[in-house]
Amino acid sequence: MKTQHQASIKAYQSGGFIGKYQRLIKDTVIPYQYSVLNDKAPDTEKSHVIQNFINAGRVLRGEDAGDGFYGMVFQDSDAAKWLEAAAYSLSLFPDKDLEETVDKLIAMIAAAQDNDGYLNTYYTIKDKEKRWTNLHEGHELYCSGHMMEAACAYFEATGKDTLLKVMERNMEHIYRHFITEGKEGFPGHPEIELALLKMYRLTNNSHCLELAQHFINTRGENPHFYEQEKERRGWSVWNGNPADTDYSQASKPLREQKDAVGHAVRAVYLYTAMADLASSTDDKALFDACLKLWESITCKRMYITGGIGSTVLGEAFTVDYDLPGDTAYAETCASIGLMFFASRMLENDVDGIYGDICERAFYNTVLAGMQLDGKRFFYVNPLEVVPGISGSAATHKHDLPVRPKWYACACCPPNVARLITSFGKYAYGENDDTAFCHMFADGEICLENGMKFTCKTGYPYDFHIRYEIEKGGNLAIRIPAWSKTWQIAVNGQILEASLRKGYLYLPIADGDRVELTLDDTPRFQYASTKIPELTGKTALCRGPLVYCFEGIDNEDDVLSLSLKRSGNLTISAYDETLLCGSASISVDAMRCANIDGLYADTAPAMTPCKAIAIPYYTWGNRGENQMRVWMEETL
Amino acid sequence: MKTQHQASIKAYQSGGFIGKYQRLIKDTVIPYQYSVLNDKAPDTEKSHVIQNFINAGRVLRGEDAGDGFYGMVFQDSDAAKWLEAAAYSLSLFPDKDLEETVDKLIAMIAAAQDNDGYLNTYYTIKDKEKRWTNLHEGHELYCSGHMMEAACAYFEATGKDTLLKVMERNMEHIYRHFITEGKEGFPGHPEIELALLKMYRLTNNSHCLELAQHFINTRGENPHFYEQEKERRGWSVWNGNPADTDYSQASKPLREQKDAVGHAVRAVYLYTAMADLASSTDDKALFDACLKLWESITCKRMYITGGIGSTVLGEAFTVDYDLPGDTAYAETCASIGLMFFASRMLENDVDGIYGDICERAFYNTVLAGMQLDGKRFFYVNPLEVVPGISGSAATHKHDLPVRPKWYACACCPPNVARLITSFGKYAYGENDDTAFCHMFADGEICLENGMKFTCKTGYPYDFHIRYEIEKGGNLAIRIPAWSKTWQIAVNGQILEASLRKGYLYLPIADGDRVELTLDDTPRFQYASTKIPELTGKTALCRGPLVYCFEGIDNEDDVLSLSLKRSGNLTISAYDETLLCGSASISVDAMRCANIDGLYADTAPAMTPCKAIAIPYYTWGNRGENQMRVWMEETL
Repeated sequence: MKTQHQASIKAYQSGGFIGKYQRLIKDTVIPYQYSVLNDKAPDTEKSHVIQNFINAGRVLRGEDAGDGFYGMVFQDSDAAKWLEAAAYSLSLFPDKDLEETVDKLIAMIAAAQDNDGYLNTYYTIKDKEKRWTNLHEGHELYCSGHMMEAACAYFEATGKDTLLKVMERNMEHIYRHFITEGKEGFPGHPEIELALLKMYRLTNNSHCLELAQHFINTRGENPHFYEQEKERRGWSVWNGNPADTDYSQASKPLREQKDAVGHAVRAVYLYTAMADLASSTDDKALFDACLKLWESITCKRMYITGGIGSTVLGEAFTVDYDLPGDTAYAETCASIGLMFFASRMLENDVDGIYGDICERAFYNTVLAGMQLDGKRFFYVNPLEVVPGISGSAATHKHDLPVRPKWYACACCPPNVARLITSFGKYAYGENDDTAFCHMFADGEICLENGMKFTCKTGYPYDFHIRYEIEKGGNLAIRIPAWSKTWQIAVNGQILEASLRKGYLYLPIADGDRVELTLDDTPRFQYASTKIPELTGKTALCRGPLVYCFEGIDNEDDVLSLSLKRSGNLTISAYDETLLCGSASISVDAMRCANIDGLYADTAPAMTPCKAIAIPYYTWGNRGENQMRVWMEETL
Repeated sequence: MKTQHQASIKAYQSGGFIGKYQRLIKDTVIPYQYSVLNDKAPDTEKSHVIQNFINAGRVLRGEDAGDGFYGMVFQDSDAAKWLEAAAYSLSLFPDKDLEETVDKLIAMIAAAQDNDGYLNTYYTIKDKEKRWTNLHEGHELYCSGHMMEAACAYFEATGKDTLLKVMERNMEHIYRHFITEGKEGFPGHPEIELALLKMYRLTNNSHCLELAQHFINTRGENPHFYEQEKERRGWSVWNGNPADTDYSQASKPLREQKDAVGHAVRAVYLYTAMADLASSTDDKALFDACLKLWESITCKRMYITGGIGSTVLGEAFTVDYDLPGDTAYAETCASIGLMFFASRMLENDVDGIYGDICERAFYNTVLAGMQLDGKRFFYVNPLEVVPGISGSAATHKHDLPVRPKWYACACCPPNVARLITSFGKYAYGENDDTAFCHMFADGEICLENGMKFTCKTGYPYDFHIRYEIEKGGNLAIRIPAWSKTWQIAVNGQILEASLRKGYLYLPIADGDRVELTLDDTPRFQYASTKIPELTGKTALCRGPLVYCFEGIDNEDDVLSLSLKRSGNLTISAYDETLLCGSASISVDAMRCANIDGLYADTAPAMTPCKAIAIPYYTWGNRGENQMRVWMEETL
């Protein structure tokens, strides 16, 4: 029994800060990404994904395969994620041309589905015999999962069910393979589990639930499954190591796992499904496992930016308190997955800790994943960049100082697009009698339970949030843990109110005006002394935004700056022309003189100065320069 | 023309700190390593190196290969380095049994040499046809180089020339291949170049010089040589990338190289030979190249401990100012090679900068490479260790918190043994009329130029160095750059004296007593602000010793300590029972309170305390615990 559930994608029509991003996705990202999928974007890695669907259709019709398959084994998923983003965009901004484009793509996808419901261009074009022989590396279930998510989103947005029917047939094909025929195995890259649960909610088809449960319950029961599979199959995609069961979260049954391990995106996609299944089926033991994994991530293995996965080696979690900033991986997709996980945890238990992390991941790592103009993307989100080392040293090749256009493995850009366009689902929840405001987002909200209201705010730069109620009920507003002080007023009357697990619960009537004021004071942050990387350092935050220091604002040298612990912090006025609308913070600091050579005996002179910080999500938008989140502190 | 040259290995008979280490090598390390080479050491990686020589001899006599070859392609070099250490040990401590053991081993080696002078057990046992087809990975020249060094050392120590003759024949074989027959190529792993120059000095055989010159002059002229070789050969040892010419210092001719790049040990072995050749042949252009490479290392790419090579990826140099402490590679062998390089630079130009670095590398990284009992060894020498992360996280697997017994790739342990037993060559130099004291070492010195004196000191814990002159001449004493103040007295009379390039030059007569007093004040060290890793940090040194902080002395938590910039430093009395004879330093510090979870808003409380530091070379001798060299500093 879910305590509350995500708002539908049609519940929220946005304005403000989020709305600006959603329009950017609609106007720039979706058209650009579509041109990439069609190989029409200049100076960009070849995608071929749409051609793959066309060619798979040809093969199924008995024609030649055209120019065959090109790309990663999971290339299909790029189309699925774009399609999902386009669906969400259509729910916000109806657009006939885009809808027509999507319908055409869906027709190509439908034509690429085999009679038995199988759908995957890699295997259909290259070798039908290899179907289902390589769950470890093969990504068939992963691609199906993403297409199921797209199908649900498009149905929700438009009511059109062509793709949903395609994916139900595909689901039945998978059901037959794993359930009816009882073939052993579980997904190499978790994703379909969460997608099946989405499709279950929409279609009420019990096979979806059963299949998701099957994959979650059998995972790790036979930790040698991938090895056995490898012995049988005799072929490989990238020669992955099937014995590394931590990498794929398959070392033991999920209910026994305590540490977040392995490939970070796989981990959080899996945990998301676990949390969804726990609330869907009242599975207390599964929720307990989710709680342990949540704690492992958020109390021991997460960057202050909400980034997760410390190492490029396996794009993975490492060990507790190992959080290097300069060699961080912190993949954009992993933080998106962390938001998914948080959102599903909220369906088990309405607790402010989930919204706090969801916000942290979104306003910092997820937004940093995209350039402010929507044209370039980070896969990897370091907390420190030093040109000459970052992107150059052998250990720092993955930590780029500026965003590239597109990637051969292009999971992150479309993931950002679908997350931003569906932001309302993460910001708002509901149950029979209550509207839940997990995050603050300007816009109109119209829930299935009949409640309707408008939220007005310039958040995250404005700390006044006003709700104008059209149809009342109960309102549950998350008060962020970072807001040490806050004030709530209804119809101009300040209320004395207390929080329940981080939420303020208010009965509201039609016509009420609710005004919330949060604490806008910038805050120095301190890290656990168990994190070797961060001893002696401090970071600057304001509201949900982590700030950082870039060379361009600081004489091209942020390394020699120390922030004064008790120094003044001056917030600039919100400036529409700064980084597409932002506010900087000026901090009392000391600049350390440099020495000749590497090491010296004499303490370097320190000169007082001002250091300028900008929000982390805006870094790397003004060319290659130094960037640092965690700064030295001086007393 | 050499300004001065290394003292002969018989010039120095040691006492004091170095003597204690030399006896440890003789009593413990040489017997232990010999048992390893014979596969008789319990719980130790199989070596098989002596059996390889026996089996190669069988093959050459037309018998079967016994149990064949086992080990790395460069396994032979383990025997060579042990043999070289044994030779130096015999020059210090005559020992009939050891000499007999060495003679027997030499006989086996001689029997493993082919009629044409070829000597390498890997190729002789496995596949004679593959000789000289894989210079990139094959290590034939590397193994020959080490055996040449061993041959020179044993001849110098004992006057016995069996191995020297074997290696002269081997040299002539190589000369025929590369010079007479004009086969293209240069060593994959430089080493033979420096060995040839040693052999040249001993035998005056001009082919040695010519061959060394050839390898140095042709290296990098054809940067595609390894690639062309790979195409021709069709086999591989470890599938190395021949196009990575930085890795093997072969991207361009050596005289044009400016940055120290690639595999750090290869680099410094090569630079050593370059510097030796420059002084041997008055090659000014080559010396200029050496100077640039020296600067690249010591001014931009060296740890404070004299460690070099920042990354495990290729065991290599990375880029300027990239000096992470926790993921450091800083291989023991690389710092030994840096001492070689420094020593040969001194033969071009007597400048204190070379002795300073030589001392830094020796007293910190090289000595840290061996456990105080001589039974365990570090290959990798991090500057920070945190159990739970070090040796555990994927990026920290190589940084072990305690020394293992032996390694499959066992280059470092015998390298430490041969360095320590030949310490006198690095500490003392001479020319016709002058004795050079590059480093301070208790013992008797008897030079070829007729000078003879005794040095008495408890250095590096005692900063009084007394020279008692038996046969006089000129004395040149390096005054370390770290010694801000010093005093020199001859026969009790304090002299006003000035330094020339860091050296004090004194005419001394028979019977003179020279007394030098150096500055024993502990010093805080500060790093360039260009090193991102070290901003805000300080390290503690005294004399040549870098100090570090271990958990065992500091409540199991060094991460939360900050050192007070102007705090008191208290040096303990020298304690014979502490870490085999040492002195700790107590420092005024602050301990930072920890927080719950990962990040907090409030500045953690700081409590004054004392922090205890021990010399870096002694770390990891009291079980697994935290260790940190660079500490947070507080004002």
